[in-house]
Amino acid sequence: MGINPSMGYYSFRDAAGLQGLHRIARDWRMTHMDRKWLVSHLRSHLSMRNFVIIGNKATTTPMFSLEDIPGTSGRLDILCRCVTAAFVLSHGIRKDVCVYLVLLGGEIPKTVRLDGETLRHLNPDERTTAALLKKALAVSATPDWASSTSGIFVRTGGLANVLADLKGARMLCLREDGADIRSVAGCDISGDVAFILGDHMGIAPKEWTVIEQAGAVVVSIGPVSLHADHCIVLMNWMMDTNWLLAI
Amino acid sequence: MGINPSMGYYSFRDAAGLQGLHRIARDWRMTHMDRKWLVSHLRSHLSMRNFVIIGNKATTTPMFSLEDIPGTSGRLDILCRCVTAAFVLSHGIRKDVCVYLVLLGGEIPKTVRLDGETLRHLNPDERTTAALLKKALAVSATPDWASSTSGIFVRTGGLANVLADLKGARMLCLREDGADIRSVAGCDISGDVAFILGDHMGIAPKEWTVIEQAGAVVVSIGPVSLHADHCIVLMNWMMDTNWLLAI
Repeated sequence: MGINPSMGYYSFRDAAGLQGLHRIARDWRMTHMDRKWLVSHLRSHLSMRNFVIIGNKATTTPMFSLEDIPGTSGRLDILCRCVTAAFVLSHGIRKDVCVYLVLLGGEIPKTVRLDGETLRHLNPDERTTAALLKKALAVSATPDWASSTSGIFVRTGGLANVLADLKGARMLCLREDGADIRSVAGCDISGDVAFILGDHMGIAPKEWTVIEQAGAVVVSIGPVSLHADHCIVLMNWMMDTNWLLAI
Repeated sequence: MGINPSMGYYSFRDAAGLQGLHRIARDWRMTHMDRKWLVSHLRSHLSMRNFVIIGNKATTTPMFSLEDIPGTSGRLDILCRCVTAAFVLSHGIRKDVCVYLVLLGGEIPKTVRLDGETLRHLNPDERTTAALLKKALAVSATPDWASSTSGIFVRTGGLANVLADLKGARMLCLREDGADIRSVAGCDISGDVAFILGDHMGIAPKEWTVIEQAGAVVVSIGPVSLHADHCIVLMNWMMDTNWLLAI
């Protein structure tokens, strides 16, 4: 198959994860089977970026208006912008990203999961994303993942279930008064990593207990308090540029 | 007045520009007149962050639908997200930011200017920003700035006029194939700075000529090609953390 041995782990990661791997396989004119083999054997070496966003009042039903998302959905608009920040590139979708939206604005919590590898129909505008979430919330949810549109899944359950799924990933929780993120400089976040963020209401004590029990490190990324989606843009860039390893 | 001489330029900049200056003045229990004096005498020492975004097909009329902004406005949605990225903080608006939206999708170009110091009614959701731009585009425009809602101005004219206004600011143009931004490391961007960005269509040759003539340095901020609003988030963070000076 002629895999260049010098094309190691970091080269693949620099080439934007699985997307890059698929591109390399295509450029090498591999057969479909060879390409499938390459991706299945090497994907475990690629880091997966997980973003967990807590929507404190975010609706768990599709009964909100696309004409007034902020006012009718418990600030689902914030989560829509987080989705865009996590996935969209200038010419495509980040394949190595997974987003968990923890919706706490219902009688029982729900979680919507978006997987970059199979995600379709995501446009960068807020309304389109909200429409996708509306569809997902119309799916009847149980404790098991149910599929909505391509790459979007929904289930009942909140933060504890999500962090249990992400056991094994390095967890960083973003908070204004956390330790400077540079204090984790040079750390190995080459495996799976999970960033946990709150919405405009931050993170409630109940969720804090869960986060602490999961062993997350609490970090801050700068002197100015930013919106969650802007933090995600920064985390993606830090991973793209190996910024933490380079400090 | 008891101004602490150790509270020099960088301290003010770290405190988020004019906003920080006003806060300091308030904390010191200054009288209204003293506060006005302080701000008027020191504001020239504060850097102003200008973001110039070129909307290649962006409409110059208010005849677009808030229910389908991407499809009816020549991608004004991209410019809306740029506005949000430039201004919004977790608890407020960046006062030391000015955004110029260069709209080229009409018979004659128009420019909308948003000034952080007086900007009002800006919410982080895309639709609210689009509604503010709709109002601005309904104002009858001449080559002189006409006021729309608080902090938003409009005039006819395109990029050449904007860059003439920004003469004296250090200009950086963001392009995928530009030099690594770290190559301007340690440079003095303590005065006014202007970042020039294209929308999804990039920057057309005609605008390139104008940009080159204005003496802008063409830089890239990472290995992955990002949306304009995400670049703005990163530039704001780089300025917030004095990242370029620290390299």
